[in-house]
Amino acid sequence: METIKGTDSIYRISQKLRQEGHTIGLVPTMGYLHDGHVSLIRKSIKDCTRTVVSIFVNPAQFGPKEDLKKYPRDLQRDIRILKETGADYVFVPETDDMYSRDHKTGIKVKGLEKIMCGKFRPHHFSGVCTVVLKLFNLVCPHRAYFGEKDYQQLVIIKQMAADLNIPVKIKGCPIVRESDGLALSSRNSYLTCEERKNATVLFENLLKAAGMLKRENLGLREIKAIIMKNILSNNSVSKVDYFDFRKPENLEEIKNLKQFRQESKNGKILIATAVWIGSTRLIDNMVV
Amino acid sequence: METIKGTDSIYRISQKLRQEGHTIGLVPTMGYLHDGHVSLIRKSIKDCTRTVVSIFVNPAQFGPKEDLKKYPRDLQRDIRILKETGADYVFVPETDDMYSRDHKTGIKVKGLEKIMCGKFRPHHFSGVCTVVLKLFNLVCPHRAYFGEKDYQQLVIIKQMAADLNIPVKIKGCPIVRESDGLALSSRNSYLTCEERKNATVLFENLLKAAGMLKRENLGLREIKAIIMKNILSNNSVSKVDYFDFRKPENLEEIKNLKQFRQESKNGKILIATAVWIGSTRLIDNMVV
Repeated sequence: METIKGTDSIYRISQKLRQEGHTIGLVPTMGYLHDGHVSLIRKSIKDCTRTVVSIFVNPAQFGPKEDLKKYPRDLQRDIRILKETGADYVFVPETDDMYSRDHKTGIKVKGLEKIMCGKFRPHHFSGVCTVVLKLFNLVCPHRAYFGEKDYQQLVIIKQMAADLNIPVKIKGCPIVRESDGLALSSRNSYLTCEERKNATVLFENLLKAAGMLKRENLGLREIKAIIMKNILSNNSVSKVDYFDFRKPENLEEIKNLKQFRQESKNGKILIATAVWIGSTRLIDNMVV
Repeated sequence: METIKGTDSIYRISQKLRQEGHTIGLVPTMGYLHDGHVSLIRKSIKDCTRTVVSIFVNPAQFGPKEDLKKYPRDLQRDIRILKETGADYVFVPETDDMYSRDHKTGIKVKGLEKIMCGKFRPHHFSGVCTVVLKLFNLVCPHRAYFGEKDYQQLVIIKQMAADLNIPVKIKGCPIVRESDGLALSSRNSYLTCEERKNATVLFENLLKAAGMLKRENLGLREIKAIIMKNILSNNSVSKVDYFDFRKPENLEEIKNLKQFRQESKNGKILIATAVWIGSTRLIDNMVV
């Protein structure tokens, strides 16, 4: 596996790979890799002849009071995992190389970026879109792989790619979970032992809500009230940012379950939540 | 010359040209071609082995009260000019093919898009950036050619390309003028005979301001006051949107001439103006 630091170098390499007829897969990450990332890399290796993994803790997607500084980093461990998994290149740019001092360009995906996580992290998705577009222009991948845990991010990136005619296939991959159901996340490393045990509250309540949707005797408002009470009764939960029922394709909120089921002919429902476990913000979702 | 309508087709062709080792030049236009466009196309033909000219009146860059509907169009004449000039491909997409009904993505270049023309046309540059980025992703050019008449547009596109690592060289080409100094523009066709004669007021006052800058006995505020009075005394002028002195690289406003000359070691000055001739808005500029 080759480690590449410079933006110029990665572009030169990607052009060479394209000329040689390779299919390039890109897995953009912020590092501190876990089995969720590994599943994306494996998928890329299966689909493509060359896999590039980027590791970059993107300052543009963190708010001023968020965890940019303390975000977990361990490049040596990441490189070991990437070698074991079989990635071809790891791209590890410096912040100064990615963002010039007078960077001015931002990307908005209207209607999608202010809801759900965007309501609580106002510039987050603009930062995500910017770095993803930069990585696409540098790595020139044919396909790019994103986890469904960041479901809203996946929908936004798909929308951006379609809107801007970006010639990259955006691939979503299923959430990978611990044996007790907690969705893998680099931020799980922030949790204390007690919090870690209680963090299953997200998955458990997604399951519970899914069950209630199936039973069909309650409306969405009632289900949400029961679930919210349930989550907030957990000892480690300090706040629930949202617990939403939305259309998986466009994140439109579903307000009336009966009406939605009629109009969509029993279409799928995205249940998505963001919950603070102590001082750690976790997200999870389920499409049912 | 080949005429291409579909976004899928142009992408297929651009990929083929790239594989064959061609250097692709793109000249994005809104059609109703004049010698300004022709000079861009000639430059592309000189630099590149294949030249693509796009003709698309981009609705996203027009305000709700602007001239989208009446913008002049004459595709047959344009195609004749393109053939004579020697372009290889003309890309003429349909609006529905370029913008899906649920298009959501916009691009902001902060600090550059709200000044000068952006102050009077609030969503204009976001629309320009969006369509340019789309065209780049579809045509995959090595180089793209823009006229310096739209000086602010050129600076914004250069900034966007640098910020997003877009692998396209952005080339600015000099303003082409009528023999009496009027900068060529498709919008000149809106002018009545009388207005056309009076429209030289932009160029004349840019020259006048340039002369006053050279003489060095007046401050910028004084020069501007004299020029504004002069322009407004023209019979056809209905309004002056701005008449600005700015740094050509980043469009920063120059407020103190002496200080600027010391700090920049007699750096160049962009003089830029937007003037309404009757109901037609014209722009022009000069770097001195």
